[in-house]
Amino acid sequence: MIKVNLEYTGLNDLSQEVKDSEIIKVDAMIRNRTGAGADFLGWVDWPVNFDSTEYKAMKKVAKNLRSKIDTLIVIGIGGSYLGTRAADEMIRGLNHSDKVEVIYAGHTMSSSYTDQLTKYLKNKHFGIAVVSKSGTTTEPGIAFRILEGQLVQQVGAEAAKELIVAITDKSKGALKALADQKGYQTFEIPDDIGGRFSVLTPVGIFPLLVAGVNTDNIFDGAKKARKQLSKHDLANSAYQYAAARYVLNTKYGYKTEALVSYESQMQLLTEWWKQLFGESEGKDGKGLLPTSMVFSTDLHSLGQWVQEGTRNVMFETVIRVKKPLANVKVPKNKDNLDELNYLTSKTLHEINSTAIEGVLDAHFNVGKMPNIVLEFDKMDDEMFGYLVYWFEMAVAMSAYLLEVNPFNQPGVDIYKKNMFKLLGKPE
Amino acid sequence: MIKVNLEYTGLNDLSQEVKDSEIIKVDAMIRNRTGAGADFLGWVDWPVNFDSTEYKAMKKVAKNLRSKIDTLIVIGIGGSYLGTRAADEMIRGLNHSDKVEVIYAGHTMSSSYTDQLTKYLKNKHFGIAVVSKSGTTTEPGIAFRILEGQLVQQVGAEAAKELIVAITDKSKGALKALADQKGYQTFEIPDDIGGRFSVLTPVGIFPLLVAGVNTDNIFDGAKKARKQLSKHDLANSAYQYAAARYVLNTKYGYKTEALVSYESQMQLLTEWWKQLFGESEGKDGKGLLPTSMVFSTDLHSLGQWVQEGTRNVMFETVIRVKKPLANVKVPKNKDNLDELNYLTSKTLHEINSTAIEGVLDAHFNVGKMPNIVLEFDKMDDEMFGYLVYWFEMAVAMSAYLLEVNPFNQPGVDIYKKNMFKLLGKPE
Repeated sequence: MIKVNLEYTGLNDLSQEVKDSEIIKVDAMIRNRTGAGADFLGWVDWPVNFDSTEYKAMKKVAKNLRSKIDTLIVIGIGGSYLGTRAADEMIRGLNHSDKVEVIYAGHTMSSSYTDQLTKYLKNKHFGIAVVSKSGTTTEPGIAFRILEGQLVQQVGAEAAKELIVAITDKSKGALKALADQKGYQTFEIPDDIGGRFSVLTPVGIFPLLVAGVNTDNIFDGAKKARKQLSKHDLANSAYQYAAARYVLNTKYGYKTEALVSYESQMQLLTEWWKQLFGESEGKDGKGLLPTSMVFSTDLHSLGQWVQEGTRNVMFETVIRVKKPLANVKVPKNKDNLDELNYLTSKTLHEINSTAIEGVLDAHFNVGKMPNIVLEFDKMDDEMFGYLVYWFEMAVAMSAYLLEVNPFNQPGVDIYKKNMFKLLGKPE
Repeated sequence: MIKVNLEYTGLNDLSQEVKDSEIIKVDAMIRNRTGAGADFLGWVDWPVNFDSTEYKAMKKVAKNLRSKIDTLIVIGIGGSYLGTRAADEMIRGLNHSDKVEVIYAGHTMSSSYTDQLTKYLKNKHFGIAVVSKSGTTTEPGIAFRILEGQLVQQVGAEAAKELIVAITDKSKGALKALADQKGYQTFEIPDDIGGRFSVLTPVGIFPLLVAGVNTDNIFDGAKKARKQLSKHDLANSAYQYAAARYVLNTKYGYKTEALVSYESQMQLLTEWWKQLFGESEGKDGKGLLPTSMVFSTDLHSLGQWVQEGTRNVMFETVIRVKKPLANVKVPKNKDNLDELNYLTSKTLHEINSTAIEGVLDAHFNVGKMPNIVLEFDKMDDEMFGYLVYWFEMAVAMSAYLLEVNPFNQPGVDIYKKNMFKLLGKPE
């Protein structure tokens, strides 16, 4: 369901750039769990290993919650919400008419945002899915304290029990203790899957069920990816992508990778991808800076820089969706005052495809900017499950190629330690 | 209203890095209109020169439109919508309860997006503000043809006349001709102000009026900025910012600037900023790649890369808002199961401020990543007008320092030419 096209990269033969033996060596580290951070490889077999009893329980609780609310607040930061939001926007779209609106909180400490949200929720029937392994992370902790309080005030403590669900550690931590004491339903974040790899666990699946997304199809996609990515060498498409970006970075000196899509509803997907790659690779003074663009809009914004700005800094990775969710035609118009009648025999998707051809030629052949093209079959629930697994395999490969641990994030704690010291947090 | 703080950059004395005489020379090019692209300097005096008769007419038309609709579709791409959207989100916030919802179209050719939007609008009372100098730009042109057709179908051609407003050239072009023929109200895009500098013209002001934003305050802010930025040398704060980023780029070799805010509702502001700087500077093989982050969320995503990834590629420019729109406290909680009671004497804004201190220290002192800090007084309509003018002055200075024309965008046409050829557009 994802094909890697390197014809606009200048890399004529990938196997000349990275030896298959290197790929096979890293592949064995992933599959045999022999590399750094191997305790966090639970995601590799998750599509077939997840607990079907818990999945059934989640479906039941989600169905009940969905029947009671018009707004779901997902409280979480980083990997606790980015994958959920990426799936929600990509699958449901940006202007859907589903009965449940999903709003995210706990990813900011802005009092402007928080104040407006609490006012907005006063007339809503809302529920909360709070996602935190420990329950003591500052941002989601504060948001939960505020919004739990508001919900209890609006509906009473007894009714709130059915409206609050915690996704957290199976036995340890403040959130688990709190949920058990107050009688909130909990679902488990597995110990061997880190935050940025966790969207297919209850972290993402539970809120997506409440949002009415078909998560069976997501799992089907992930299973399909796991099956199709069984190759140990460069025949594996995820490894092709990993190897190409590794070579552009370490051999040709590119420092930044921009993930580009032509679909506004994939913008959050690029945010999820930024965490996955930035946090997995950005350590020991290494790693590409992940950035993103959405075309057409950014062709009329960053497009100028991409075409003619500083060279040899950035390359693009372009997501090209082959099949749109719907076909729209350019309507006929007698007057033709806008001079667009030459397009009326075409669908928007055909015009967009032509734009992509034009852009690839302009950026690579004229602008000398390498473009990796990722051809996606479609853009739906099944595709989401597939691409999650695919990018996870790719990042494990590329981080190990860089000789960094793909599964830790030691740098994230530094600001926290500073902040706790300044805030006088008790030891 | 904006103070530049360089203490986390390592630039101890800016006047040692860039001579005041260089700044004064470029300042004269801007104010005396002697540099490249000087035909597009209309924005410099716009805050005092704009046509008050047209402004009054806009207010009247906007008031009428606002009374008739629940949804405003702003059709435009690049500078025709980014500033509007930045203002809308920053000023109204992300979860406002205003009666008019604003949705953007014409910035994408995705048929998935377009199809969903047309379905969503079936049960809405919507109006259209279409923004295009020529009216023949492909993306907004197609979107307008589709949505104008839908509106006429839903309410009839006669009623649609009051619901469609075109912001376009004063006399030339397809959109002007179309609007005149069909009886749509038009407002004028000035000839001497380019798209990315145009948010304070009818391009942004008209839709913002319909959205219920106080545009008088926006103009007050812009006037204040124009007055406060009267200095010709490094005493001018916008020039301090321009000079600092120019030095980090050309003398110290940084290739990328990330604009960072701690307010989710400023995310679109960073998108507007990307176009302003990327399109003004990114030419002749020069210019910083503009990227952006929103903290706290991105501290748990890109934060790892920022702290410990590849060095000497990126620097940060951090927007720090001094006064929040509202004060929210961390509520008290007897049980303290989440261990956050040590914060209950503090407002969220105080905690967020402490986070900023902790992050600046972590990123600069530990991570060796330079941080320019922009201290904003507040985050409202007046501030928006101020910052627009301030960044516009800054980019004119920095682009001229790079010896490029800040006001053209020759690279944007290359993909279009390719596309038109592939689509068989008539000459």
